[in-house]
Amino acid sequence: MSQADEFFNLDDQDQGLFRQLAPGLTTRIFAGDQAMLSVVSFEPNAEGTLHQHPEEQWGVMLEGDGVRTQGDEEIAVKAGDFWRTPGGVPHTLKAGAKGARVLDVFSPPRAEYRKAGSGFGEGQ
Amino acid sequence: MSQADEFFNLDDQDQGLFRQLAPGLTTRIFAGDQAMLSVVSFEPNAEGTLHQHPEEQWGVMLEGDGVRTQGDEEIAVKAGDFWRTPGGVPHTLKAGAKGARVLDVFSPPRAEYRKAGSGFGEGQ
Repeated sequence: MSQADEFFNLDDQDQGLFRQLAPGLTTRIFAGDQAMLSVVSFEPNAEGTLHQHPEEQWGVMLEGDGVRTQGDEEIAVKAGDFWRTPGGVPHTLKAGAKGARVLDVFSPPRAEYRKAGSGFGEGQ
Repeated sequence: MSQADEFFNLDDQDQGLFRQLAPGLTTRIFAGDQAMLSVVSFEPNAEGTLHQHPEEQWGVMLEGDGVRTQGDEEIAVKAGDFWRTPGGVPHTLKAGAKGARVLDVFSPPRAEYRKAGSGFGEGQ
């Protein structure tokens, strides 16, 4: 395999495995061996559902703003902010009025996100 | 520990573990349990040195442009592009005339980057 096959773009809607997470909330997923990237698009005011999984997660807000819930804390986030969500901590995000784009990283990769489907997975 | 302690910003120069990688090339490192983020700043035309390590790496070009070398291939990259570098593949990046900012993800975390120092580490 050519190394060129490992190169992608955040805006290319034809790349990655598409997944509808919730109303107005979609992602494209790119799986590696040790980590998985998820390029998440939030329509204005879209929100996920509180969930958790054993994999560590990092999120980077690329555009827009919103409120991140982790555990029992709510933290306002804007473009340029990033955060770590330790495995097993319940979390979700609600976008603000402009919507948002978030790059999520899962490590190790979430097995449920390697295949087509919808929602946030079963977690545990 | 409060979840608020897990929140950071790409522009906050006081956060992360500073590391000088090469002339005109610095980073701030944030280590988790399963993954490590590195917020890398390239001055115009700055470049790293070809190196490799067993950990998987992902890179996201946040600003600027440059040329990514992976294996024996050279691939032009610009803001919005991202790529996976499998473990053991030699790689480096040279920024263009505007400089660049790149978010790197290592999984698992690179042990050498958990401590203060300079350069790209010993790799293997």
